[in-house]
Amino acid sequence: MSTVAAPAAPETDPRVKAVFDDIRATRRTDFINNLWRHLAFDPPLLERTWAEVKALMATPSTLDPLTKELVYIAVSIVNGCSYCVHSHTAAARAKGMTNEQHAELMAIVALAARTNQIATALQVPVDAAFDAAAG
Amino acid sequence: MSTVAAPAAPETDPRVKAVFDDIRATRRTDFINNLWRHLAFDPPLLERTWAEVKALMATPSTLDPLTKELVYIAVSIVNGCSYCVHSHTAAARAKGMTNEQHAELMAIVALAARTNQIATALQVPVDAAFDAAAG
Amino acid sequence: MSTVAAPAAPETDPRVKAVFDDIRATRRTDFINNLWRHLAFDPPLLERTWAEVKALMATPSTLDPLTKELVYIAVSIVNGCSYCVHSHTAAARAKGMTNEQHAELMAIVALAARTNQIATALQVPVDAAFDAAAG
Amino acid sequence: MSTVAAPAAPETDPRVKAVFDDIRATRRTDFINNLWRHLAFDPPLLERTWAEVKALMATPSTLDPLTKELVYIAVSIVNGCSYCVHSHTAAARAKGMTNEQHAELMAIVALAARTNQIATALQVPVDAAFDAAAG
Amino acid sequence: MSTVAAPAAPETDPRVKAVFDDIRATRRTDFINNLWRHLAFDPPLLERTWAEVKALMATPSTLDPLTKELVYIAVSIVNGCSYCVHSHTAAARAKGMTNEQHAELMAIVALAARTNQIATALQVPVDAAFDAAAG
Amino acid sequence: MSTVAAPAAPETDPRVKAVFDDIRATRRTDFINNLWRHLAFDPPLLERTWAEVKALMATPSTLDPLTKELVYIAVSIVNGCSYCVHSHTAAARAKGMTNEQHAELMAIVALAARTNQIATALQVPVDAAFDAAAG
Repeated sequence: MSTVAAPAAPETDPRVKAVFDDIRATRRTDFINNLWRHLAFDPPLLERTWAEVKALMATPSTLDPLTKELVYIAVSIVNGCSYCVHSHTAAARAKGMTNEQHAELMAIVALAARTNQIATALQVPVDAAFDAAAG
Repeated sequence: MSTVAAPAAPETDPRVKAVFDDIRATRRTDFINNLWRHLAFDPPLLERTWAEVKALMATPSTLDPLTKELVYIAVSIVNGCSYCVHSHTAAARAKGMTNEQHAELMAIVALAARTNQIATALQVPVDAAFDAAAG
Repeated sequence: MSTVAAPAAPETDPRVKAVFDDIRATRRTDFINNLWRHLAFDPPLLERTWAEVKALMATPSTLDPLTKELVYIAVSIVNGCSYCVHSHTAAARAKGMTNEQHAELMAIVALAARTNQIATALQVPVDAAFDAAAG
Repeated sequence: MSTVAAPAAPETDPRVKAVFDDIRATRRTDFINNLWRHLAFDPPLLERTWAEVKALMATPSTLDPLTKELVYIAVSIVNGCSYCVHSHTAAARAKGMTNEQHAELMAIVALAARTNQIATALQVPVDAAFDAAAG
Repeated sequence: MSTVAAPAAPETDPRVKAVFDDIRATRRTDFINNLWRHLAFDPPLLERTWAEVKALMATPSTLDPLTKELVYIAVSIVNGCSYCVHSHTAAARAKGMTNEQHAELMAIVALAARTNQIATALQVPVDAAFDAAAG
Repeated sequence: MSTVAAPAAPETDPRVKAVFDDIRATRRTDFINNLWRHLAFDPPLLERTWAEVKALMATPSTLDPLTKELVYIAVSIVNGCSYCVHSHTAAARAKGMTNEQHAELMAIVALAARTNQIATALQVPVDAAFDAAAG
């Protein structure tokens, strides 16, 4: 059940086909997951979303691929996005995340959430030492 | 301005002094930041909070120290905790985070937030392929 | 599956019947969606909730009906309320929202979420020019 | 600094004066805090907001006054509303909240946030035993 | 469907069995709900999580057991944790929460969310009277 | 106070100067607000962020400019981004938002937050009638 029907034959639209072809080539798989199948209802939104995912997640950069997935999972958990938690946990596993790392990720997300709430509850003033402009 | 007054002489309480001593020893610094100074209003809460921060953040584990700080910052951003964003950005810098890595972290947190909103707006059903029990 | 059982014959309670009658008359439909059927477990909460929805959403005002639904969807997405995303997307469609407008709404919600995270990550100070009192 | 300027002489508007008089009478104080002073920019919004706060928070009900404030603080913390955390912590103190209760409230909010993140990370299926309709 | 498969025979691990035994003894029931069954995939995370839940929720303290559950539900609602809303609503019912109290809890969570949004929209400055350090 | 120091002479970097020139030309003003001044610390992040803001907010589309700002404010409120609430409220005012519209926006954001919490508290099942695929 979704708020937009996934097009039945999305690749008859050449813009959608081009994105799906690029997803398959970039990820070296024939599997196109549901997010992209539903985004096909609006080719410009599909194109822009995939372009940024590819640029940031599938391109070598200063953070290693697994670290990027761990950050992605963490954000998805806090935003409560069930779909994204599932898809990026699977992606992290595919990039080598072990059960121990998965458990440690949960522990750190939970710890951060915990101290976030305490700092907000206390309304602690920020230490001057943390000011980047003073560095 | 805070919801709890930081005790004026917190280390006259031996439980607070023990925690502050451990913070100084663990971090090899004399600086005790405001979160701990305010948590001193309730020694049991101070002890439990520090014990978990130390166990997860200051102990070697399956994730490297900088990765843990990046996840911590990401969670703090999404939870909107100003204090925690400041303190953990400073901590990540102290552990070697470069400006490029900081910018990339922001880009990934922002990308995840973006696709989280889109997946939630579409209410995309989770692909069966992502089920761990099916793995 | 819900935390409260929807009453089996809610309209035997005259307070519930009065609200359901008003929903049908206001919306010109016989369809009472599940939110109201479950809220019937507590007539005062049902009455107060419907009264406010009617006053704000079903009464002519300074914002047009579709704009109000778009804002409602946006808030529901960010709050991660699956039920509300579904019900208000359906309501917006009934008020004329096109696929293009739906896609654009998602794009703006996603853009805002993205810059929200970046501004929070940077802890950017608010420009004096934005102060309403200075206007 | 605010997005709306608080009217300089709000009580020259009789609708505002009526609300402010009722706040003073209900709370038995001359102090009108900044939320109401800013809401005075739009008398209907001021009236509706105060009417609901009074109905729920200043009227005897099935939950005692302090419990209601503790829930209010908890929600305000998770929503990251600095103003509300301050105002409702002050209100809870006025209703007798001790330092120990305040610390325990923080501990429970933090624990709930922690297990919320873990349950979301795991995407645990809900046990059939929790279904109210099955009760 | 979950991101981690619940172990098929979790109690063959003595650390898991010890936690499950303690859950059964503490709660006086044979029912182990799904959160714990899934957390069994990582015994240290299971142990730490249960230890804190037991210390805060199953130990007499300055807040009564039902108040603690109400706060827990409130946080879980705002964090959008479906599993936790279900499990803690069931726990609150087991501790005596009536339908009227449940409805009132929802009304207060909703009111707090409402005024949280308004205060954030207005960016109301915090009154000096709320400063704990000034008390 | 920020987590990144705004460069003292950002326009000595030609990539930053190009973005700032485009902001000035697009908005027909000499004012560059703090978000862009801080993002100048990383020119690629600055470029990508401005490119998307310009494409979505400063380009004619299926939603009118004021509606887009109202949605932007709504999302920023729920995400608790103080800076963004300020900057987009100012932008909405510049595009003609009246006080009455501003108050109504707050009322709808608050109403949505309220019903979001109630629907999440009840865990209401989604009506089959809302399924787009069934449409």
